[in-house]
Amino acid sequence: MSEKENKGITVKKSDNFSEWFTQIIGEQGANLVDIRFGVQGFIVHRPWVMHMLRRIYDYLEEEVEADGHEPMLFPTVILEDNLLEEKEHAGFMPDVFWITKAGSETLEKPIALRPTGETLIYPSYALWVRSISDLPLKGYQSRITVFRNEKATRPFLRGREFMFFETHDVFRNHKGALKQIKTDMKIMDKVVWRKLKVPFIFFRRPQWDKFMGADDTYASDTLNPDGRRNQISSTHDLGTNFAKAFNIKFRDEKGEEQLAYQTCFGPGIWRIMAAIIAIHGDDKGLIVPFDMAPKKVVIVPIYKKEEENEKVREFCRKLEKHLKSFNAHFDDSDHSPGYKFNHWEMMGVPIRLEIGPREVQEDQVTLARRTRKEKEKAKLPFLKKRIKAAGKEIDTDIEKNASSYFKNKTKSTKNYDELKRIIKEFRGFVKTPFCTTKMAGEECADKLKADTQGAYVCGTPFKNPDRPKEGDKCVVCQKPAKSIVYVAKSI
Amino acid sequence: MSEKENKGITVKKSDNFSEWFTQIIGEQGANLVDIRFGVQGFIVHRPWVMHMLRRIYDYLEEEVEADGHEPMLFPTVILEDNLLEEKEHAGFMPDVFWITKAGSETLEKPIALRPTGETLIYPSYALWVRSISDLPLKGYQSRITVFRNEKATRPFLRGREFMFFETHDVFRNHKGALKQIKTDMKIMDKVVWRKLKVPFIFFRRPQWDKFMGADDTYASDTLNPDGRRNQISSTHDLGTNFAKAFNIKFRDEKGEEQLAYQTCFGPGIWRIMAAIIAIHGDDKGLIVPFDMAPKKVVIVPIYKKEEENEKVREFCRKLEKHLKSFNAHFDDSDHSPGYKFNHWEMMGVPIRLEIGPREVQEDQVTLARRTRKEKEKAKLPFLKKRIKAAGKEIDTDIEKNASSYFKNKTKSTKNYDELKRIIKEFRGFVKTPFCTTKMAGEECADKLKADTQGAYVCGTPFKNPDRPKEGDKCVVCQKPAKSIVYVAKSI
Repeated sequence: MSEKENKGITVKKSDNFSEWFTQIIGEQGANLVDIRFGVQGFIVHRPWVMHMLRRIYDYLEEEVEADGHEPMLFPTVILEDNLLEEKEHAGFMPDVFWITKAGSETLEKPIALRPTGETLIYPSYALWVRSISDLPLKGYQSRITVFRNEKATRPFLRGREFMFFETHDVFRNHKGALKQIKTDMKIMDKVVWRKLKVPFIFFRRPQWDKFMGADDTYASDTLNPDGRRNQISSTHDLGTNFAKAFNIKFRDEKGEEQLAYQTCFGPGIWRIMAAIIAIHGDDKGLIVPFDMAPKKVVIVPIYKKEEENEKVREFCRKLEKHLKSFNAHFDDSDHSPGYKFNHWEMMGVPIRLEIGPREVQEDQVTLARRTRKEKEKAKLPFLKKRIKAAGKEIDTDIEKNASSYFKNKTKSTKNYDELKRIIKEFRGFVKTPFCTTKMAGEECADKLKADTQGAYVCGTPFKNPDRPKEGDKCVVCQKPAKSIVYVAKSI
Repeated sequence: MSEKENKGITVKKSDNFSEWFTQIIGEQGANLVDIRFGVQGFIVHRPWVMHMLRRIYDYLEEEVEADGHEPMLFPTVILEDNLLEEKEHAGFMPDVFWITKAGSETLEKPIALRPTGETLIYPSYALWVRSISDLPLKGYQSRITVFRNEKATRPFLRGREFMFFETHDVFRNHKGALKQIKTDMKIMDKVVWRKLKVPFIFFRRPQWDKFMGADDTYASDTLNPDGRRNQISSTHDLGTNFAKAFNIKFRDEKGEEQLAYQTCFGPGIWRIMAAIIAIHGDDKGLIVPFDMAPKKVVIVPIYKKEEENEKVREFCRKLEKHLKSFNAHFDDSDHSPGYKFNHWEMMGVPIRLEIGPREVQEDQVTLARRTRKEKEKAKLPFLKKRIKAAGKEIDTDIEKNASSYFKNKTKSTKNYDELKRIIKEFRGFVKTPFCTTKMAGEECADKLKADTQGAYVCGTPFKNPDRPKEGDKCVVCQKPAKSIVYVAKSI
């Protein structure tokens, strides 16, 4: 698609994150989406972000297949009866879009657009699982969208149609299910932290905030710069709840019929993209890990005299060809070098090569990294190696920034007034003693939410959770604390 | 997914193609789909076919991107107003599914599930195209599904939800559009013929059978073994019809506003898959090109005595690892070798390696190709090379078979009674003189259809069409023939 007049971002990320985010994803920014589609919460994904979203899908597909999952594709629609089959899960009903007509005819039975995959998939699983030799059954759906009638919508954070990825697994016992949940967490670590450099904490959600129909929900939260938590994945321990509802049973070694145990895992494709934009990006635009960048290298010609022009451009063209494996792009447009620098920094291209008459003469390039100020010279024969090394340096920069950003995002308190003050002023997590994450704690969570204009009990970290000390009391109700929970505002 | 009891196919492809097709895609065959989803025309795609469908998408994405197309993703829904904007295109209305409710609320404006992409995409194109520097604009959507309320449905041939791929291009003039149409045909040749070995003819459709809203439609038809044509792609010359309806205009070099010319290209993902199954497959099951096969090699152990067992299995395990780049699979299940041979032939795995005590002792394998009867021995150090070569041999076999199959599928006649007889008895195309492929010919086409229980005028081949000879008369109305058309029954 063509380059448009680029006004640039007019606010600083640190001053007004929300407006910065809106600008960077729009036409004046990196032109990732078009929100002028005409139906609220339904957006158009433009090429630059499609390349990046595909990368996220690629990484996840590779990992879940290495873990034994097979691809499958179910219809976009669900029968109403199936949606209602698992009683708690039927809580999705208010958010569901209904197809009631075809042409001018009214359908005999209305069908729903899938809000998620469980009730869509499990009737088939009931047919496919017969004996213990069918287990574990591990399938996934990728590159699909789901539909929920959200009230407030925002690109990459909350949509009425949004990008989806889901695994659905069936095991012979609870042990197998729990082991899978740990594997799902490892996949998140491998893809979202190690490759995409997005930091997060895996929480065990409070019982009142589980996925509808699950026994337990494990979800990972990262934080936007405004301190609001962004849930980027969830893994659910479904126990035998759906197996009971959908009759997913197998004959064990003794020939006896057993209910199967299930898990499902959903990394949020949009949410992960939002985190990459929000956490790595700066006031100049996007910053993305090297491997994810749609173009890893941009080549900008710099000449003052007309007679230098053709030599420089010829050199650039050769360079573009030479660096094809990096999707190098020679920007031969009529804009000024300064305009081009700004434009490709906005798009988050990791490496810029500047080529002037001097570079041509000396058979070298001037190399600039998106994450550093200083430039360097690189000789042509070593350029590919140098670019790969610079890519790693950029990834290290992104990882360091993200890591220190996230480390400074947690405070602790045992005092309710201080908690309220921190939530108001500080942008991040607050660790605090809490009565219980069992159902009995919901009342305190509700009060906390009301007293803080929306702070939310994220739960207890899955790994090495802090334990309350002798005498610790719930920050809200002052009863003895059974957990140390994290609290943060939600997006 | 686990291996199920496999009853095998009970009919011959040559005796009853329709039943053979149903069996091969179902659980007793290669288990590609599950049709027990509960809503007519909506099916579940199982892993084996998902791997193959992804390959088709991969090939197409690679080619259209090399041709300058960029990925994009639009919503699944269309506003009614947009669907009605282009008057001829509004003919899609009777086939459209409508979303009228969200939760228990009625939507203010119903929204349609996309039946195709034009009216979904072009309002955005109108915003994106401003000046001549924005052209050509070349975008595509991949790995999506579309929805049409078809009366009769069949997996891979006609569905209410089916897999889709579409490019949408905008040009400054008609010359650019026509050039693109030729490129689209080249892409079909590269992907569908050269890679997937599906033979087809590109037709210029009669004017009465154009895509709704197009000036001209170029579509490629292949033939199922029952002689019914299977349209596997179409490219439309939209002229300025949609540009007028959606106001897609650009300022030319002189600053004057001009209507843009458009094309769109849709290879039918499902239909291509159907053709691969239908044309390459045999009475033993699927046959697929080497690169497309989800597993290229299966390793089957053969031992009679218990004490040979572990040595053979150890050898097989090593072999599976050694051949990982071919997705080799060691079938260590409890079934008999014969059962395993049948099963993997059904799945279309191109190469089978048989390993017995003798092979272990001599450090070699017995290699069988899916397309040939004779087996051969191959020594381990050369095995990878040998497998690659065997892959090419298999592709050559498939290509030769498909080519001779398709060559024998066309007859000619100038006599109406003979035409009717051929259509009834012969399974293929009939070439015949026809009055005209302009609108005036529609009446003859309708009569032909009625007189033959459904034969359809495919149009004239795009490449080297036969010209009527002096005195040739329309086979139906006996007026002077302006075209030699192809006629065939439709699926």
